[in-house]
Amino acid sequence: MNSEMQGKYERLAATLKARGLDVQLIEGRLKSQHIETPSWGYADSGTRFGVFPQPGAAVTLSEKLRDAAHVHRMTGIAPSVALHILWDMVDDWQALRQEAEGLGLTIGAINPNLFQDEAYRFGSLAAPDPTVRRKALDHVAQCIEIMKQVDSRDLSLWLADGTNYPGQDDLRCRKRRLEESLAQIYTMLPDDKRLLVEYKFFEPAFYATDIPDWGMALLLCNKLGERARVLVDLGHHAQGVNIEQIVATLLDEKKLGGFHFNDRKYADDDLTTGSINPYELFLVFHELVTSELNDDQGSQIAYMIDQTHLLKPRVEAMIQSVLAIQRAYAKALIVDREALAAAQADGDIIAAEECLVSAFNTDVEPLLVKVRDDLGVPADPLQAHRESGYQEQIARERAGRKVQPTLG
Amino acid sequence: MNSEMQGKYERLAATLKARGLDVQLIEGRLKSQHIETPSWGYADSGTRFGVFPQPGAAVTLSEKLRDAAHVHRMTGIAPSVALHILWDMVDDWQALRQEAEGLGLTIGAINPNLFQDEAYRFGSLAAPDPTVRRKALDHVAQCIEIMKQVDSRDLSLWLADGTNYPGQDDLRCRKRRLEESLAQIYTMLPDDKRLLVEYKFFEPAFYATDIPDWGMALLLCNKLGERARVLVDLGHHAQGVNIEQIVATLLDEKKLGGFHFNDRKYADDDLTTGSINPYELFLVFHELVTSELNDDQGSQIAYMIDQTHLLKPRVEAMIQSVLAIQRAYAKALIVDREALAAAQADGDIIAAEECLVSAFNTDVEPLLVKVRDDLGVPADPLQAHRESGYQEQIARERAGRKVQPTLG
Amino acid sequence: MNSEMQGKYERLAATLKARGLDVQLIEGRLKSQHIETPSWGYADSGTRFGVFPQPGAAVTLSEKLRDAAHVHRMTGIAPSVALHILWDMVDDWQALRQEAEGLGLTIGAINPNLFQDEAYRFGSLAAPDPTVRRKALDHVAQCIEIMKQVDSRDLSLWLADGTNYPGQDDLRCRKRRLEESLAQIYTMLPDDKRLLVEYKFFEPAFYATDIPDWGMALLLCNKLGERARVLVDLGHHAQGVNIEQIVATLLDEKKLGGFHFNDRKYADDDLTTGSINPYELFLVFHELVTSELNDDQGSQIAYMIDQTHLLKPRVEAMIQSVLAIQRAYAKALIVDREALAAAQADGDIIAAEECLVSAFNTDVEPLLVKVRDDLGVPADPLQAHRESGYQEQIARERAGRKVQPTLG
Amino acid sequence: MNSEMQGKYERLAATLKARGLDVQLIEGRLKSQHIETPSWGYADSGTRFGVFPQPGAAVTLSEKLRDAAHVHRMTGIAPSVALHILWDMVDDWQALRQEAEGLGLTIGAINPNLFQDEAYRFGSLAAPDPTVRRKALDHVAQCIEIMKQVDSRDLSLWLADGTNYPGQDDLRCRKRRLEESLAQIYTMLPDDKRLLVEYKFFEPAFYATDIPDWGMALLLCNKLGERARVLVDLGHHAQGVNIEQIVATLLDEKKLGGFHFNDRKYADDDLTTGSINPYELFLVFHELVTSELNDDQGSQIAYMIDQTHLLKPRVEAMIQSVLAIQRAYAKALIVDREALAAAQADGDIIAAEECLVSAFNTDVEPLLVKVRDDLGVPADPLQAHRESGYQEQIARERAGRKVQPTLG
Repeated sequence: MNSEMQGKYERLAATLKARGLDVQLIEGRLKSQHIETPSWGYADSGTRFGVFPQPGAAVTLSEKLRDAAHVHRMTGIAPSVALHILWDMVDDWQALRQEAEGLGLTIGAINPNLFQDEAYRFGSLAAPDPTVRRKALDHVAQCIEIMKQVDSRDLSLWLADGTNYPGQDDLRCRKRRLEESLAQIYTMLPDDKRLLVEYKFFEPAFYATDIPDWGMALLLCNKLGERARVLVDLGHHAQGVNIEQIVATLLDEKKLGGFHFNDRKYADDDLTTGSINPYELFLVFHELVTSELNDDQGSQIAYMIDQTHLLKPRVEAMIQSVLAIQRAYAKALIVDREALAAAQADGDIIAAEECLVSAFNTDVEPLLVKVRDDLGVPADPLQAHRESGYQEQIARERAGRKVQPTLG
Repeated sequence: MNSEMQGKYERLAATLKARGLDVQLIEGRLKSQHIETPSWGYADSGTRFGVFPQPGAAVTLSEKLRDAAHVHRMTGIAPSVALHILWDMVDDWQALRQEAEGLGLTIGAINPNLFQDEAYRFGSLAAPDPTVRRKALDHVAQCIEIMKQVDSRDLSLWLADGTNYPGQDDLRCRKRRLEESLAQIYTMLPDDKRLLVEYKFFEPAFYATDIPDWGMALLLCNKLGERARVLVDLGHHAQGVNIEQIVATLLDEKKLGGFHFNDRKYADDDLTTGSINPYELFLVFHELVTSELNDDQGSQIAYMIDQTHLLKPRVEAMIQSVLAIQRAYAKALIVDREALAAAQADGDIIAAEECLVSAFNTDVEPLLVKVRDDLGVPADPLQAHRESGYQEQIARERAGRKVQPTLG
Repeated sequence: MNSEMQGKYERLAATLKARGLDVQLIEGRLKSQHIETPSWGYADSGTRFGVFPQPGAAVTLSEKLRDAAHVHRMTGIAPSVALHILWDMVDDWQALRQEAEGLGLTIGAINPNLFQDEAYRFGSLAAPDPTVRRKALDHVAQCIEIMKQVDSRDLSLWLADGTNYPGQDDLRCRKRRLEESLAQIYTMLPDDKRLLVEYKFFEPAFYATDIPDWGMALLLCNKLGERARVLVDLGHHAQGVNIEQIVATLLDEKKLGGFHFNDRKYADDDLTTGSINPYELFLVFHELVTSELNDDQGSQIAYMIDQTHLLKPRVEAMIQSVLAIQRAYAKALIVDREALAAAQADGDIIAAEECLVSAFNTDVEPLLVKVRDDLGVPADPLQAHRESGYQEQIARERAGRKVQPTLG
Repeated sequence: MNSEMQGKYERLAATLKARGLDVQLIEGRLKSQHIETPSWGYADSGTRFGVFPQPGAAVTLSEKLRDAAHVHRMTGIAPSVALHILWDMVDDWQALRQEAEGLGLTIGAINPNLFQDEAYRFGSLAAPDPTVRRKALDHVAQCIEIMKQVDSRDLSLWLADGTNYPGQDDLRCRKRRLEESLAQIYTMLPDDKRLLVEYKFFEPAFYATDIPDWGMALLLCNKLGERARVLVDLGHHAQGVNIEQIVATLLDEKKLGGFHFNDRKYADDDLTTGSINPYELFLVFHELVTSELNDDQGSQIAYMIDQTHLLKPRVEAMIQSVLAIQRAYAKALIVDREALAAAQADGDIIAAEECLVSAFNTDVEPLLVKVRDDLGVPADPLQAHRESGYQEQIARERAGRKVQPTLG
């Protein structure tokens, strides 16, 4: 940390201390933050209108791991990678795990693919045809085996299941089939592993998605048991839905399993986290910090990024996203919670709101630089990445191959 | 029924029979349909921008009952009235009940008012101030006493509770207070009575509504017990939400308590039922009929209208709404369910969809005329109402009074 | 027409005549209805999550024309095909035109593709790079040449142009570049040809689409001149937007150029027309008929289908869509417009609304069967298609080829 | 400015200068910022569900002026007040103007009320009944007379006109009547005065609002002439609509007349500006600053607040809003526009975005304190207001009166 930044840090620390905050505790929390990046975020992807391939896009799982390791090297808080079983198949999972460890990474959530195969035309776990459901369950069973081998805790389940037209299928039958399939998956799951159930408002199902909202995801999880938890993807809600309230509710129910971070303006746009409404991201973290301070479920929550970088350079966009999440967390940590609680007790809406606004408007960069310094990573990870030559290097090394775009 | 209509009816009946449908059973269901109208729907109401008073608007509860009785006289399927405790207070509830019975009506759901009093500024059952929560609980207790006296089965609870700004209150604390208050209400409730819990996406709370969606309403009901059920207001969802799927889910969970019928294009517009998307209303009834035919919960579901007739003459608009609901039910009853199930089993989306489309496009008026004939009500209730002189009569009788608009 | 249907037809005709309607005129309008189907609607397509190929999906333009001809043979009102220049390139356009004519078809709108090429990463007509804009203009010039050869009247322009993130580009610069490019296209256009400018709320641009709504499209068209018209795609609006009002406005401005018919529940879902809200489709046609009766712009409006049949058999879905549009038109034609105008003049909202509701609820099938009879096409086109063996035939003939999915 | 703040200011100024920014110019712009507060924002108001009266709520226009003067005293940048003609009627407008000037205020926009009178049941300027349109025009003429007397430049027109049901009125006839009425208003308007035309997505019209979006407002303004401009209310859009793009478009067309500032999460919630998505507010100001630097239309744009403070103390909420707008402007002023333009030219999305993000994340409070110091107002206006005793004083002075809530 150069002396100018050191000065800024000291002044910020003094301000926070004056507010009654324990700066060391805050820094400790920031240093132990853990954001998981997705393997598929390093590969080419697109919209239904096309794919714009990027130079250096990762194709093999080894390449994806290398990219993820670079992101971790730049940020210090992205030590694990989520895998997508189909796009990330390897023969020797032990070797894969060792390769990851050699790069300073662990394997995070395992994501089955239950949407791409032609058999899933009418759904997977909720499909009318029992042989299709069986095929889907077999795939999940295979994923659970992989989880054991790579020591992954979370089976992260997103289903494209649903219908496109009224009448296409009986909605109640679909629900019952889904419940039955999930119960079988839960039975297969070892005691130390969890099932994360993701919901999504719509797409690719355009009439009725079988798990359309947190209410359905929670209902299903509650029927399964303790180790079934809801996964919140920030882009999977109807317009206007209050996401931080869902987070608060799930935390209160001890049923929040994790996040897929991204942002959106319209639908499931899969934009960089915090790029459209950073205040909303901050409010989500405010709820998370409230929980951390009261009934710490932190270790129970998987913080994962899931974005589609259509135009932004993928590795750089991932770094940018990790930083945006880090910033939101830092701002949530410096909220003056005593003043907030007092204002809330007084019915003083403006004073309460200003506690949040004031934290949000604080420039926390000096605090983050200090944390990065302690973690031994660059003070400005984006710039360091640009200067590292990593992008040029992979563009060079990976050139000339036929890139097969990953969907989604 | 005149001979032309008789001919139409016979041809329609023949068509339906050829489709394998039991026309007498269908007519029986239509004759026992029961739609509840709201007392407040007969009084003046408006938007925040003003109220346009109507000649003949009901002010006293007696007037509202008379209007409701007229609607029932015209339609034959609207034999009960929901009351709103605050706007509908009387001294002698036994007398009120007798007055209703004298008009051929029963008293339906009792709706507490937990939003209008200044004390509810920060909420009612979820308010931070325990004296406010106590006040709200006392009001509900009073409503339960009234229920006993008027022999009402359902306590229909809509809460305006929520917050307008981030930070205004702690979201988890609100949830816990709400749960505690609801538990107390449930304890107060006699064994033969039910608690209907309504949800609403937003308004009048503009940041976080404490019961924003079916998921929260169901979560709360499941914690309370068997006699707590979810109430679905068709106007209380985010744009695009699949309401018929929610209905199917709640039916499958045996947790659908009732409806507030209306329609909307934008938000909680409280327009006449079926006026914006009649096909959606039909699809909702398709789910209800599916349930009737399988695990009949019909008697468990309260079918209530809740609309705000800003410009339409209120009594006439109520008749129009009852007819729109009747029509949707009739169309849902004539779906060829065998063909539908077969097409669904075949994955034949178009054939399955056409089963619904074909029923929806059928002109069921002859069937409805037959049912009305059997019920002894006019064949064309709207026209009969217009010819009855009822509107002119109440306009005359109720003229010259100072009308105090009912909110909402 | 069998005698049962004949009886139905005669009774319906009598009813309509009693309402003061000229049934022959209505039938004449229905017989001259002209709906254009898109070549790309016969080929495989999907979502970003994958493509489910269909047996018999068309690959070559000849196959697409054959499918379109079949749809026209079944319905009698789909005599033209829109082409997509990129997916539909041929060497000899004169031969293509003759091939179409041999099948009883004409070539309709020409759709340039300005989104799929990698060069269009940052846009096409509004791209920052002048060489990209030049490339796009060259492509459009080529399309205009094709228009001349196939005798197409309309250049149908949909742009994917836009930005994904705040700051990505200067919004005003984009607008100016777009205006400049469009002016060049307009200059290139022969006097007997038109430019249809389509708008879209979002996707694939997720922050700011350069032509996001009818207001921008109209602004641009008004700057260009008489032969630039707005194209309304029914799926390209924000939730809740009143599409029939936009249609009425554009008609009143003499700036409605055409439609892309489809339906949606969420975003640009590209579902079958009328499958989600058939009443809305009817209201759109009510505005069109109002115009037909007053200041006939009928020949100025291109009625085109643009859907993505992800799961429905494509040819059959196209027939279903043509029929849904035909039905909406028929219902709009039988509105009692005298009664409607009288009720509107009286401020009698319910009577006015019931004029529409009553027409919408009329079973117009007998009228449509008569029209089909006169046109020499099957009375029940969907069933006739199923019985024709066409689907089995193309599945057989086109089997075993490597299908390259068309995007979008 | 205390020495700690002085230090912060100097460091911030140095940083900005290093970025090539002219800090004095920026401060000059901030000092000449001019935000207009609405007289009705100081009076009691509510939702359709009720009004929660506030102690000290203004009733008379004098009281509203006093409150506005206090807001200006605290902030230094709110020197004018918009009036609402109906709620703000006085006999002697010259005296009123002098009273305002005595308080250091000028009179800003004049807002006719064309929605509350019972005559406007079916609309005002677009109503079917010519006597209603005449009444509305007479009211507007009266407003223009008032404008002359109080030296107001802008007639700010918001219409509630629209319909609630399909068929209620002919959409094209409404458009034509509206155009005709507006033309008459424009003719009445003196040469030095302007007509601001506001649009609104919905409410209180729930089917079709006559001016539903910027496209219609611009179309109308373009037909009127140079002095008709569009007014953008931040809460009057469909979900997801890109407001900053509309602002950019209107600026480019030289047709942006002004703003009604507020924020919303759902519909026209009328929350405090910037309380839900402060980044969006910043992006709006980014477009405004872009215009200021290129083709200065600043003096042509009326910056007005229009909010409904349901629960927040009204005077304090107004101060909070003025500060939020000031902050957004300041952040927009410190964007490194050279770096931004360079990144845009390079297609470097992340670098371009980070120019905005970095400005947004800057703590501009020291700069604002400097500006306030120069303006002679308190460094922390919210706290100064709380310490001023003003709220207690008005609560005392205005107690015991019967408060008549202002709608809207």
